[in-house]
Amino acid sequence: MTEKSSARILVLNGPNLNLLGTREPKTYGTTSLGDLEAMVKSHAATCSFSVDFRQTNNEGTLVDWIQEGGKGFAGIILNAAAYTHTSVAIHDAIAAIKTPVIEVHLSNIFKREPFRHHSYVSDVAAGVICGFGPVGYILAIDALESMLRHQS
Amino acid sequence: MTEKSSARILVLNGPNLNLLGTREPKTYGTTSLGDLEAMVKSHAATCSFSVDFRQTNNEGTLVDWIQEGGKGFAGIILNAAAYTHTSVAIHDAIAAIKTPVIEVHLSNIFKREPFRHHSYVSDVAAGVICGFGPVGYILAIDALESMLRHQS
Amino acid sequence: MTEKSSARILVLNGPNLNLLGTREPKTYGTTSLGDLEAMVKSHAATCSFSVDFRQTNNEGTLVDWIQEGGKGFAGIILNAAAYTHTSVAIHDAIAAIKTPVIEVHLSNIFKREPFRHHSYVSDVAAGVICGFGPVGYILAIDALESMLRHQS
Amino acid sequence: MTEKSSARILVLNGPNLNLLGTREPKTYGTTSLGDLEAMVKSHAATCSFSVDFRQTNNEGTLVDWIQEGGKGFAGIILNAAAYTHTSVAIHDAIAAIKTPVIEVHLSNIFKREPFRHHSYVSDVAAGVICGFGPVGYILAIDALESMLRHQS
Amino acid sequence: MTEKSSARILVLNGPNLNLLGTREPKTYGTTSLGDLEAMVKSHAATCSFSVDFRQTNNEGTLVDWIQEGGKGFAGIILNAAAYTHTSVAIHDAIAAIKTPVIEVHLSNIFKREPFRHHSYVSDVAAGVICGFGPVGYILAIDALESMLRHQS
Amino acid sequence: MTEKSSARILVLNGPNLNLLGTREPKTYGTTSLGDLEAMVKSHAATCSFSVDFRQTNNEGTLVDWIQEGGKGFAGIILNAAAYTHTSVAIHDAIAAIKTPVIEVHLSNIFKREPFRHHSYVSDVAAGVICGFGPVGYILAIDALESMLRHQS
Amino acid sequence: MTEKSSARILVLNGPNLNLLGTREPKTYGTTSLGDLEAMVKSHAATCSFSVDFRQTNNEGTLVDWIQEGGKGFAGIILNAAAYTHTSVAIHDAIAAIKTPVIEVHLSNIFKREPFRHHSYVSDVAAGVICGFGPVGYILAIDALESMLRHQS
Amino acid sequence: MTEKSSARILVLNGPNLNLLGTREPKTYGTTSLGDLEAMVKSHAATCSFSVDFRQTNNEGTLVDWIQEGGKGFAGIILNAAAYTHTSVAIHDAIAAIKTPVIEVHLSNIFKREPFRHHSYVSDVAAGVICGFGPVGYILAIDALESMLRHQS
Amino acid sequence: MTEKSSARILVLNGPNLNLLGTREPKTYGTTSLGDLEAMVKSHAATCSFSVDFRQTNNEGTLVDWIQEGGKGFAGIILNAAAYTHTSVAIHDAIAAIKTPVIEVHLSNIFKREPFRHHSYVSDVAAGVICGFGPVGYILAIDALESMLRHQS
Amino acid sequence: MTEKSSARILVLNGPNLNLLGTREPKTYGTTSLGDLEAMVKSHAATCSFSVDFRQTNNEGTLVDWIQEGGKGFAGIILNAAAYTHTSVAIHDAIAAIKTPVIEVHLSNIFKREPFRHHSYVSDVAAGVICGFGPVGYILAIDALESMLRHQS
Amino acid sequence: MTEKSSARILVLNGPNLNLLGTREPKTYGTTSLGDLEAMVKSHAATCSFSVDFRQTNNEGTLVDWIQEGGKGFAGIILNAAAYTHTSVAIHDAIAAIKTPVIEVHLSNIFKREPFRHHSYVSDVAAGVICGFGPVGYILAIDALESMLRHQS
Amino acid sequence: MTEKSSARILVLNGPNLNLLGTREPKTYGTTSLGDLEAMVKSHAATCSFSVDFRQTNNEGTLVDWIQEGGKGFAGIILNAAAYTHTSVAIHDAIAAIKTPVIEVHLSNIFKREPFRHHSYVSDVAAGVICGFGPVGYILAIDALESMLRHQS
Repeated sequence: MTEKSSARILVLNGPNLNLLGTREPKTYGTTSLGDLEAMVKSHAATCSFSVDFRQTNNEGTLVDWIQEGGKGFAGIILNAAAYTHTSVAIHDAIAAIKTPVIEVHLSNIFKREPFRHHSYVSDVAAGVICGFGPVGYILAIDALESMLRHQS
Repeated sequence: MTEKSSARILVLNGPNLNLLGTREPKTYGTTSLGDLEAMVKSHAATCSFSVDFRQTNNEGTLVDWIQEGGKGFAGIILNAAAYTHTSVAIHDAIAAIKTPVIEVHLSNIFKREPFRHHSYVSDVAAGVICGFGPVGYILAIDALESMLRHQS
Repeated sequence: MTEKSSARILVLNGPNLNLLGTREPKTYGTTSLGDLEAMVKSHAATCSFSVDFRQTNNEGTLVDWIQEGGKGFAGIILNAAAYTHTSVAIHDAIAAIKTPVIEVHLSNIFKREPFRHHSYVSDVAAGVICGFGPVGYILAIDALESMLRHQS
Repeated sequence: MTEKSSARILVLNGPNLNLLGTREPKTYGTTSLGDLEAMVKSHAATCSFSVDFRQTNNEGTLVDWIQEGGKGFAGIILNAAAYTHTSVAIHDAIAAIKTPVIEVHLSNIFKREPFRHHSYVSDVAAGVICGFGPVGYILAIDALESMLRHQS
Repeated sequence: MTEKSSARILVLNGPNLNLLGTREPKTYGTTSLGDLEAMVKSHAATCSFSVDFRQTNNEGTLVDWIQEGGKGFAGIILNAAAYTHTSVAIHDAIAAIKTPVIEVHLSNIFKREPFRHHSYVSDVAAGVICGFGPVGYILAIDALESMLRHQS
Repeated sequence: MTEKSSARILVLNGPNLNLLGTREPKTYGTTSLGDLEAMVKSHAATCSFSVDFRQTNNEGTLVDWIQEGGKGFAGIILNAAAYTHTSVAIHDAIAAIKTPVIEVHLSNIFKREPFRHHSYVSDVAAGVICGFGPVGYILAIDALESMLRHQS
Repeated sequence: MTEKSSARILVLNGPNLNLLGTREPKTYGTTSLGDLEAMVKSHAATCSFSVDFRQTNNEGTLVDWIQEGGKGFAGIILNAAAYTHTSVAIHDAIAAIKTPVIEVHLSNIFKREPFRHHSYVSDVAAGVICGFGPVGYILAIDALESMLRHQS
Repeated sequence: MTEKSSARILVLNGPNLNLLGTREPKTYGTTSLGDLEAMVKSHAATCSFSVDFRQTNNEGTLVDWIQEGGKGFAGIILNAAAYTHTSVAIHDAIAAIKTPVIEVHLSNIFKREPFRHHSYVSDVAAGVICGFGPVGYILAIDALESMLRHQS
Repeated sequence: MTEKSSARILVLNGPNLNLLGTREPKTYGTTSLGDLEAMVKSHAATCSFSVDFRQTNNEGTLVDWIQEGGKGFAGIILNAAAYTHTSVAIHDAIAAIKTPVIEVHLSNIFKREPFRHHSYVSDVAAGVICGFGPVGYILAIDALESMLRHQS
Repeated sequence: MTEKSSARILVLNGPNLNLLGTREPKTYGTTSLGDLEAMVKSHAATCSFSVDFRQTNNEGTLVDWIQEGGKGFAGIILNAAAYTHTSVAIHDAIAAIKTPVIEVHLSNIFKREPFRHHSYVSDVAAGVICGFGPVGYILAIDALESMLRHQS
Repeated sequence: MTEKSSARILVLNGPNLNLLGTREPKTYGTTSLGDLEAMVKSHAATCSFSVDFRQTNNEGTLVDWIQEGGKGFAGIILNAAAYTHTSVAIHDAIAAIKTPVIEVHLSNIFKREPFRHHSYVSDVAAGVICGFGPVGYILAIDALESMLRHQS
Repeated sequence: MTEKSSARILVLNGPNLNLLGTREPKTYGTTSLGDLEAMVKSHAATCSFSVDFRQTNNEGTLVDWIQEGGKGFAGIILNAAAYTHTSVAIHDAIAAIKTPVIEVHLSNIFKREPFRHHSYVSDVAAGVICGFGPVGYILAIDALESMLRHQS
């Protein structure tokens, strides 16, 4: 239990998620990325997780960060946004590390354009959660917590 | 709050899930359907949900039950198993009711055969959770709980 | 004329049509299945047809009924709903009998999702009528009446 | 009611339908286009419709006539024949007018070559009737009559 | 040898096979399902197999029966008919049991419509026999007998 | 022999062939349509054919002319040019008549853009000749002459 | 400069554009074809172009006019409307002439149905302008003016 | 009966089957081609068949042999191995003769790479047997024996 | 008018456009990016626009800049070059802002490789201009100027 | 002229053409390959061609012969039969030589199975003639004769 | 080391490579097959390899040779030329042996026709080298030498 | 010769190659990127090449570096890793420079997932080497050395 209190998780957000709350509110809701970070950190604290929460518009930076998540982090929650559908590099980064990665999407990508129905992340992710808005991040933390508990 | 204590949810399991624990343990784990039902009911109780938990190998019965879920249930958790990939009838039943439906899969269907990558459920579901084993059902209950709380 | 007064036709309705009038009224209108049955029987009477009007959510039951329609019925009006697009079994049942089958759809399936554009019924049906709402059933009765008149 | 007695409908026939009765009788029957026109006019009279019945082998002429049908006609019955499968121009003409268009085919196009299974007319038509031979035109008149009655 | 005398095999027939002998005789021949059952049982007796011979039009029932075949049967001979081409549920049921399943088709499905060229059964079956009419069932019994002999 | 001296054939040329000799000489050569007509008539005369040689840019006019060719002509030589690849109406006109139609192309359409590799004419033509430039028309006349000789 | 004052351009409008202003105003705006012609001529005058502005619903007529544009015109502005997506004949006519052709569309065809995303005009056009409404024609004139200025 | 005692059958084996027993034993087992020949001849003798058993790596030789099988042989058992999936020439040879051909595969080709799922042999074969290893050849002999008995 | 004098527009150039003038001159011409910037600024000045002109080889930087263009800019002219065909992230950035974006390409992308025929930009752009070389940027400025004039 | 009297042409026939006259007479007619050779030689003599007429069932042999035809022959008439649709090796052999190759098919391959609609020969052949039976070879000789005459 | 001095490698060349130096020099260069053999043998000698260098136009012969290469050869260098793209038989032969096979192409097949972009050899080869002309064979020898050195 | 001693080559490594030796060792082996750099530099020295060896996870940086390689470098060895399959920008950068680029992959990409079978690099590369692990880089240096030697 003591060692879990120091468990760190990495929450990575991909392109355009910095606009959350202002961008297409019908699809993405009115919560801002700052609000989301606060929600995630608050919930993670109840699981004794500390959270490193980041956003970038750059595919290569996501690759860097996923690699970084492979060392010293208990889990990664990844909303790769648009790069979900186009990035083999992100796919390979996830496959290259042992840290479990949970794929999250705010919107239900299966209700949207066909090009959003395929994900290069899913088949290397531990699991997928989509369509629940910010709550999806909370569920992902609980899922990680459960996975780690069963390992220990 | 008092009325939520009486909120009922319907948990529907499709074909071959009655074999859970004996069927392809590498893919589906060793938890039996009875174990899963107990886990689900136990967790639901903490959210003041009562659970009606069912399994059938019959597509038409799933359609009947989803229609039934449209009246007097606060939410449906649906693991349509094989019918996920072939049933327009289930798609239409979900579209025909107002009760939110959460799609759950024990395995990560995106790691499996291509014919499991398309779901007729996803685009009419509120959200999708897959790859977490039995924990996925627990997450789905939490997701429902959160959705209902925000509506009330 | 006397023998026609005893001609029986079978009107078969597939999955989710029991929800007619409540389900997606924009697509399917506000007439209930009971209303539809009454309309059909009333019009059939003017053609001296007696009508056996049924609905099921079960693919296998539709197969049973179509086979039943192959004996002692002058014609079948079939709205297979969702099974239209997925059921080779229904296709084969129609091919296996001599009774003419008329395919009817309340909505114009060609205005809807691509997966509704293909029908396993059409190429074994005598003809297809779609997009006219309940009136389509009336037209189908008239079409049957005309077909039978030309045969006798 | 009085004004309906003067309602005019436009019946448009596409390429090669002038050969009706001589062309591939197995597929199209032995009724000539003149016979068909007589049948249609006779039946329309019982609904108090007057009929303008035309045939052309020219796609552009069909576009002209559909536009013409948009002004002063209560409905259009359109058998676009081969242009059904290739003409975006006809699709656009129908979309550009408010007059309801009913798509009719003598043969069951779904029993024929794959290139006849797609119609550029269907998704802008009010409804589709196919496979009933000349009777299909009669049914289309009845369908129009019913549609207009419900509007008035 | 004594234990083989009690070996039971399950012969399952899918939709529309109850019409055998009357349905499309050019494709399926004139042997009735009763005749086929008698042939199968008679031949099985020479291999000291007892046969449980069943037919259903219902996909879910086939799933139930295949699961049942997983317990206490030495082998399953499955002619899933139309469901061969559409049923992931049957695929999964076969994958979920250890009892060997032999896929049989009366007609040569590769001579027929393209939608009959894909089978969801084949890749989980022990082997496939098609095109030999009722004799295919006899061959399947011999194949099972040979497989079991080599195991014992 | 005497009746053959009066045999008439119809040579139909589709869109842009009026520009022959000026249009893309690399692909179509430098012979003008007038030159081609002269060549064709001169060669036809040696076979005792009289030739009706026409060109149009209009699909509907080609349909009209093919229908006309169905009455009183011994054969049709058709270079439908661009309409080869898009016209179901021309396909249907050929199918509707008994007069044999020989498809000719000046260029080798299989060396050109993929959209020129499919022809709606070929499967209703008696035969196909392409890639020989103006000589193709001469070969087509000889082919017709041979076909008619074997019939008589 | 003096010779440019006599430069003539041909502006060709395809099917249903005669309905401009009345047809689907959301997509095509409220400017009528007459208004558009006035705008075009007024702007062209500032570039010392004289404009021949035409509309037809007939594919063959567009082919005729494009050929005509190949002689004595400095440029062609072509909005082939529906024929854009289906006409190889128009493609070939443009390829057959030396006069530059600019493709214009009022609406942004890439926001519309998939069958409007492919153009048979684009790969033989000098350039493409779409989505700007009537302004697109003005831009096309400027583009032509610039192209001709650089040649001279 | 006497003439059947002299019935000859041709068993043809395609490319790489000479390596049987050494090649990928997981897929093809440990029986050598010599062992297989002995098994086949021994079983054929019980049906009073004499067997001509051959193997070649050459597509053209298979064509030659199938043509040879068309004269003086009662049946052909063909395992075309890799050529199954690529050879139209073998398809045509089978179509060109009247002798029945039974397609056999040692492995279950439907469990393997997608390019092995299509067979150019199946639609001209009398029937198909696959997945039973060497036993498949025995079943094929029995099937031939049964076919010939029913003809005589 | 005074406020328009201060209107700023953002001109964004994607990967490899820094090589303009040296890269494949047949396709892209001999104007350098510096020349282009000068042309654009000079023309913009006549419309009282000030121009921020940028180039990057980085997809993420284009996303950043498009987001930046969403605040304080009257319009964006975007030549996303290679990212046009692969970037969902750019698509999403454009959809996330209200500033109108005009898509420009120097070359006619429809004359080039098939993978350049699809654009992730087009369906979220206000309009598309391609094939006119540097002049396309000038036209885009005029188009923006016209759009803004009509709004004010 | 004198040297043309010694011009040699190579007529190559692919797999199963040795069965001509016995194989599927509905498709291929009743002329035997020997008859065809006689016809071809007789007609060639009138053009002062000597003919080397061969048949093989072997793809590699066709490649050898086409290469041989590249030296000392004035032209090749090639009916590659089944290898037409599958042989890149034959395609490459034709591309590797300078001698003109004329592709001939007895049947109209476009009326047959879809896998016969693509030819690896056509785009490297000088021209294509199909559907005229044995007459096609005669036309091919005339075509060669004309091509050679125009070169000399 | 001593045993490596006796190591033999097999260099196999497929159809039309005997024409090297004369065939399409732009694509394949001017080196003849004899020159290539000399280069290969000379370089191999520096690695103490003896080389068996062969060419055939026959698919079956390549299969024979690859099988032969499975016994007593240290490695195979295979340029299957046209059969690369069509031969499952060669694929299977490579899979059936343990000797490493290196795939070589003189030209860069990815710059050529789409049908040359898929190779049935690549996924069973140890590695692929293409586009370097004759040098590719030299590199392949070095690659083999390196592979064998690491094994020993 | 003297100038070759100063020839510089650029070796570029794409995303996740920094993890070499730790990432999926079954696929990529145990050599680290540092080891690889040492091997490459050591071998290059024997060819009198100096090597600039770089790695990045960023697509845009690869584009920058390829452009840089266009000036002052004798050749580029490019392992674009995941970007191989998705980057048109890299394709365009290679096409924009004159320096030869050799594509290298450590693993045999044709044995892996289908999305790795297509490369945007191959058709603009001088040649391709894949499947040989680190040795592939050595072969690439030799290939470059040979190419440069033949130019000088």
